[in-house]
Amino acid sequence: MSQAITVQLIDTPKGISDCPGFKTSGVSCDIRENGDLSRLDLALIMSEQPCDAAGVFTLNDVCAAPVHHCKEVLAQSNAKVAGLVVNSGNANAATATQGRLDAAEMSKLAEHETGSDLPFLVCSTGRIGRTLPMDKIKSGITAASKILAVDPISSANAADAILTSDTERKVATAQFQYQNKTVTVAGIAKGAGMIEPNMATMLAFLTTDLNAPSSTLKNTLTQACDKTFNRISIDGDMSTNDTVLLLANGDSGISTKDAPDLLQAFSEAVLLVCDSLAEKIVGDGEKVTKLVELVVEGCKSQNDAEKVARCVGNSLLVKTSWYGSDPNWGRLADAAGYARVGLKEECFDIHYDDVPALIGGIPQDTNLEQWKKIVAKKRFRITLNLNQGKEQFRLLASDLSEAYVAFNKSE
Amino acid sequence: MSQAITVQLIDTPKGISDCPGFKTSGVSCDIRENGDLSRLDLALIMSEQPCDAAGVFTLNDVCAAPVHHCKEVLAQSNAKVAGLVVNSGNANAATATQGRLDAAEMSKLAEHETGSDLPFLVCSTGRIGRTLPMDKIKSGITAASKILAVDPISSANAADAILTSDTERKVATAQFQYQNKTVTVAGIAKGAGMIEPNMATMLAFLTTDLNAPSSTLKNTLTQACDKTFNRISIDGDMSTNDTVLLLANGDSGISTKDAPDLLQAFSEAVLLVCDSLAEKIVGDGEKVTKLVELVVEGCKSQNDAEKVARCVGNSLLVKTSWYGSDPNWGRLADAAGYARVGLKEECFDIHYDDVPALIGGIPQDTNLEQWKKIVAKKRFRITLNLNQGKEQFRLLASDLSEAYVAFNKSE
Repeated sequence: MSQAITVQLIDTPKGISDCPGFKTSGVSCDIRENGDLSRLDLALIMSEQPCDAAGVFTLNDVCAAPVHHCKEVLAQSNAKVAGLVVNSGNANAATATQGRLDAAEMSKLAEHETGSDLPFLVCSTGRIGRTLPMDKIKSGITAASKILAVDPISSANAADAILTSDTERKVATAQFQYQNKTVTVAGIAKGAGMIEPNMATMLAFLTTDLNAPSSTLKNTLTQACDKTFNRISIDGDMSTNDTVLLLANGDSGISTKDAPDLLQAFSEAVLLVCDSLAEKIVGDGEKVTKLVELVVEGCKSQNDAEKVARCVGNSLLVKTSWYGSDPNWGRLADAAGYARVGLKEECFDIHYDDVPALIGGIPQDTNLEQWKKIVAKKRFRITLNLNQGKEQFRLLASDLSEAYVAFNKSE
Repeated sequence: MSQAITVQLIDTPKGISDCPGFKTSGVSCDIRENGDLSRLDLALIMSEQPCDAAGVFTLNDVCAAPVHHCKEVLAQSNAKVAGLVVNSGNANAATATQGRLDAAEMSKLAEHETGSDLPFLVCSTGRIGRTLPMDKIKSGITAASKILAVDPISSANAADAILTSDTERKVATAQFQYQNKTVTVAGIAKGAGMIEPNMATMLAFLTTDLNAPSSTLKNTLTQACDKTFNRISIDGDMSTNDTVLLLANGDSGISTKDAPDLLQAFSEAVLLVCDSLAEKIVGDGEKVTKLVELVVEGCKSQNDAEKVARCVGNSLLVKTSWYGSDPNWGRLADAAGYARVGLKEECFDIHYDDVPALIGGIPQDTNLEQWKKIVAKKRFRITLNLNQGKEQFRLLASDLSEAYVAFNKSE
């Protein structure tokens, strides 16, 4: 019987530079057109070897031009890619035909400047509805191509260049050993607003030095996204640009096909990296002050549990009460009720961390002081048990602050 | 060919006293238990004759005790009621068995104090999850019963006593003439927070002096609610207590059965009153600064149009941009896209009032100064045309202010 391979997140991830065979850079080229050249806004990630790749994308009908570009590139059978080019400050969304031309041009510029004969995947994030300043983009790609390197500073610059209203760089790396060799999955992400079902204005880019066919990458990434990025909620808005990409360059010399264990270890590594990035995204949501782990259990189906979790996690009245450290379980019950999955009040339990608030529909008022302490924490758990079945769903949700409204009232 | 009956809202509605045969009162009995006896919190409405009645209720699985009581009373065939008793300050929701007993007791107390042998409908609104202070309720019902009267001041007191975070009394009255007699439909309402699909923490009470069977009342009221109260949105939260009641006492001596025209005139009167009250509710939403009429048209089905309207009207990013007077049509397009009804960008038009912002997916940037002026208004219209069909949906929506968050962060 084979020993399962141990997969672990590393303690001090540096970003893409953790993964052998990938060069990175991040530059400032004033894509916001406000003359601020201190802010990095264009990132380039390039593999030293041709990559297999897979992507998971927004389900929004209004889908940004670079999303169309990525889908087209990845739709080619056995498509290999050179890497990816990403800008922040402008989403290249709702930009009609010009937007599509600009996204394709970004790939062409990166190919030309890096001397690659393979296409680049392209992502954009920022304001919707404005065409890209292609002169700035062009100078950015030229500059970024010249300084591509495998080092932690270049890697940090790339991770910074994709951020918008994020306040912190988001990186995570998982590794495992196989036959005395190390296999790495490294990831970077950006989040902040529009974080909800089926991803959000979030971008995440994962690289691995494992060798894996694109079909394996696609399955692995889809499953990981479903359990991580698709289970976080800041404001309930789904963006036009959501993209998660996974690039595999085989630099480790190890292939998923070498042993059955490897696929499982790889899946676990991708899941760990996505989970770590997802949690960082919610924790750094726009003007978020609280992170709440919502666990809905005892449901007849996972779908029911998800409906309840999303109603509760997206309720403005629930979110504002979290912000105010108010243990207002009545609002939780109300929001759970309008999910309309057949909740029965007399069977309904609510816990704050491990402290009961409602048991079989009866308030446990003697615990009030304990609830108050829990909801005053920066992070806590709420469990809703419908006691109707065995299925559950976990959603990471944030509170809603006055500062969120002030921040988003104009752009 | 008969002349259609003209139905009109009256210019200076006074509330239930506009409708002959209904007595009202409103008293203060400290249901919030904060010692404030200056705030009216219990209303009584009683007909001089037995009433036929109908109700439309929240669809929330967590349904307040008084909603159960009303449904039970109205489920009796040919049930007649004496009137209704309403408290604010405590929702009697998520209060388990004790809540049900308390709601029934409110009816019994009203019967006893008014000497009626018919049941009262009961409504409550306010904080969820606390049992009613029945000693206060009892003293309130006793006091309210003693001062029941048909006059504008009693009527205003009743309309005020049902309010929670509303800042304004909400009344509307429609009338029509038939054979030299006046038929009246008078209504009062409360709104403020939790205003969304299928009603919200909203209560509305309509009375008429027409004679109509409960089945007619039910049909008429359901249709009117579907076109009015169910098409407003403040925060997307559906409450446990939503209730709209319609009581008919026949005091005018005219029955819906007297002439075919009468049912149509009555339906129109109920619709006008509900529409007027619904608009007052959105305009007086918690800390609302803008009222936006969202019209989604050119859809394949009304259901599609409704999905788009609700996604846009409930989007935090859209609501905050309205609050900030930012003509951010990109957020409108994004939210419309995640309704996922098959929107095609190249067919999509957006107008602010009558000024184009997007035509066939192409931004009309030269109109930017005009959009800015429109979204700076207190009330404006946004039309989204998907150009895919002939169906449409209209939603009255509000903005989202920092003050909303501050107001709701604790209770």
